[in-house]
Amino acid sequence: MDQALQDALRELGNETGSPLRIGGIAARDLVAAHGSPLYVFDADVLRRRVREVRAALGPRVELLWSVKANPSLAVTRCLRDEGTGAEIASLGELHVATAAGHPAAELRFAGPGKTDAEIDAGVAAGLTFHAESADEVGAIAAAADRSGRAARVAVRINLPGELGGSRLRMGGKSSRFGVDEDRVPAVVRTIAGHPSLRLAGLHVYGGTQGFDAAAFVRHASTVVARSAAWEHQLGVAFDELDLGGGFGVAAYAGDPRFDLAAAGHGVQELVHANDRPGRRWFVELGRYLCAPAGVYLATVVRTKDSGGERHVVLDGGLHQHAAAAGFGAILRRPPLLVHTDDPCAIGTTVTVGGPLCTSADQFAEQAALPPLANGDVVAILAAGAYGLTFSPHSFLSHATPAEVMVDAGRARVVRARGTPSDSLRGQAP
Amino acid sequence: MDQALQDALRELGNETGSPLRIGGIAARDLVAAHGSPLYVFDADVLRRRVREVRAALGPRVELLWSVKANPSLAVTRCLRDEGTGAEIASLGELHVATAAGHPAAELRFAGPGKTDAEIDAGVAAGLTFHAESADEVGAIAAAADRSGRAARVAVRINLPGELGGSRLRMGGKSSRFGVDEDRVPAVVRTIAGHPSLRLAGLHVYGGTQGFDAAAFVRHASTVVARSAAWEHQLGVAFDELDLGGGFGVAAYAGDPRFDLAAAGHGVQELVHANDRPGRRWFVELGRYLCAPAGVYLATVVRTKDSGGERHVVLDGGLHQHAAAAGFGAILRRPPLLVHTDDPCAIGTTVTVGGPLCTSADQFAEQAALPPLANGDVVAILAAGAYGLTFSPHSFLSHATPAEVMVDAGRARVVRARGTPSDSLRGQAP
Repeated sequence: MDQALQDALRELGNETGSPLRIGGIAARDLVAAHGSPLYVFDADVLRRRVREVRAALGPRVELLWSVKANPSLAVTRCLRDEGTGAEIASLGELHVATAAGHPAAELRFAGPGKTDAEIDAGVAAGLTFHAESADEVGAIAAAADRSGRAARVAVRINLPGELGGSRLRMGGKSSRFGVDEDRVPAVVRTIAGHPSLRLAGLHVYGGTQGFDAAAFVRHASTVVARSAAWEHQLGVAFDELDLGGGFGVAAYAGDPRFDLAAAGHGVQELVHANDRPGRRWFVELGRYLCAPAGVYLATVVRTKDSGGERHVVLDGGLHQHAAAAGFGAILRRPPLLVHTDDPCAIGTTVTVGGPLCTSADQFAEQAALPPLANGDVVAILAAGAYGLTFSPHSFLSHATPAEVMVDAGRARVVRARGTPSDSLRGQAP
Repeated sequence: MDQALQDALRELGNETGSPLRIGGIAARDLVAAHGSPLYVFDADVLRRRVREVRAALGPRVELLWSVKANPSLAVTRCLRDEGTGAEIASLGELHVATAAGHPAAELRFAGPGKTDAEIDAGVAAGLTFHAESADEVGAIAAAADRSGRAARVAVRINLPGELGGSRLRMGGKSSRFGVDEDRVPAVVRTIAGHPSLRLAGLHVYGGTQGFDAAAFVRHASTVVARSAAWEHQLGVAFDELDLGGGFGVAAYAGDPRFDLAAAGHGVQELVHANDRPGRRWFVELGRYLCAPAGVYLATVVRTKDSGGERHVVLDGGLHQHAAAAGFGAILRRPPLLVHTDDPCAIGTTVTVGGPLCTSADQFAEQAALPPLANGDVVAILAAGAYGLTFSPHSFLSHATPAEVMVDAGRARVVRARGTPSDSLRGQAP
């Protein structure tokens, strides 16, 4: 069996050969009780992921939850209750984070295109900005001046040659993300010298789905070295160092494992060698915390044979889990798709598609799965991040799926299922 | 200037060198009045497209609007008022179509994964099903039996070697779409012999974004020939022949033109040679009717230089117009992006991205555009189809854009702008 699939099943507490359970409840029962398609999150897995990461990174590193990975109020609250901070990238995420109990003043606000209205709201909330450009720093200063209160600003830096091993590199070349190294001194001086701005520190984010722990540590070390050099050169103190994140999570067949222990060991050494009173260290993670805790369940609606091949059509598809259908990816790869009655079995060859009128709506092409009949439930594992909200869920105007959180053996609805008439919401003739 | 861009500007009535106007109103004024980002639809263009297609196809062909291309109530109503029928693919689209004034009994219901609940609703509405498999025909029969009323069924067929020239072929191989040729007789016999089913005819859909008019006509001819052979063989009458659609629309630089006149000429000849009393002919179009009528407007929020290149960041991005950012495409190609102050000018080289925290959120890389400053408005043309609803608009929890329809020199809001707190809609902790 594929290693990534085996790991994903084990993460959910499932042993070979028995029907899939999530948080101790059979997937079939969850669909029977809450309908299909359905997203399910396992609170125990969320908490365990947080504990594992905190143990690896050591007590000096604060963990930030990247709300964008799954702006579920229940997921965000569960992670907060386990002790994470949060990093947001829009006012919508600000609403989610504060509703989940985060003090607004403790939030970090990321993103290269913060509007003046968003910056005004951020200043009013007293949060810390991760500034991406000199232009943005000027806008934050203007907003702070307008409001009469100071704004905290960390500078996101764009380092050359960033983070080998990431699936999606986001720095190290001409970029709308972060301030180029040679421009950092001027931007830092602007912040340090402006009466309405408070220099918080430095932030870096090198890429997402990075599976090379050593590369992450090397990158973090570079950030720390640059930080020390700039402090010396500019006569400032970077009290906060946000080392980024992007730890890889296996979500497709053949994906490697991320060596959390190695990353944690390297970060702890780095922190130990560069710590000082008053300094705060951050690592921010989205997918790594929540992807393994989530499952997307869908039901077989139709079966057919065509051109000598077996097809099944589900009630869910790319409109609700686009990443699993390869949307937005360069290469389409098989997601961790199983028959919930027997997640480890194979036996037939089948193409699994969704209900949309496009051939792109497909999760598996001629995959090895047990026989599937109408009413059977399939699961896509490692679906707790970049699921529903990463998907074009209005495409073809199907009702959005419900989301349930399983905790202490009980399932509760944390996002209500949509209705067909939602297609008319906000519309006028 | 690129031919596709020139055609898109002309379609909107814009001459070289003047600021972009949509339905006679300056794009800048639309943003000033209705906010940014903003989708704008031009009712005159919608009506003209319908008239042009109907003139080309002749009086015997009925035109169906594929609601999936843009499930806007206002767009759907405008097209209906101009005389189109409609083809739907979900209960959400059923709500849009009926709210726009379509009698439910005149609708066609497509899609390979119609659930039993959707089929029940379709039977109750009295619409015509485009059935994709024997399995679905059985489900429709069962629903009809349950309800005590007859259901109308057309058989979607999957022909070998379909529709060369399409960007996305959807038939002619093993597929969840349509019934394989060799299985059609059995499926037709099932429908003809079932007391609760009424055989409506045949339906075919060979692919989308087809730019080869001759290929469309050849394909339609094949359908008609097969239809006649099956009628003879099976002793049935296919009163309705739906020839599909998928006419190509230029939406990216370098896209070709579709030869509507040639397609129309070929279809008229085909209809003339195979017409008979009581027969209904259909062509269904989505993108071709509405893409050129729509514009996505976004505002420059930040500008920066990085690595020797100029970047601008917009308040809109792939979350609101994913297709323009190449989402879901194999190859990323430049959309028809212009500066609204001077749509034909070039002068600088700039990378244009959106506000999301991903490098994928980008509309143009080092494109030739006039200088762009904060507050300037850019437009993506040919954005009237597969725009907002094809996009992951919840990704990063930004408020959804408003949509306005410009008609007779006046703009009215037809989809209200979202708010940041929409991120909490339906959620529970």
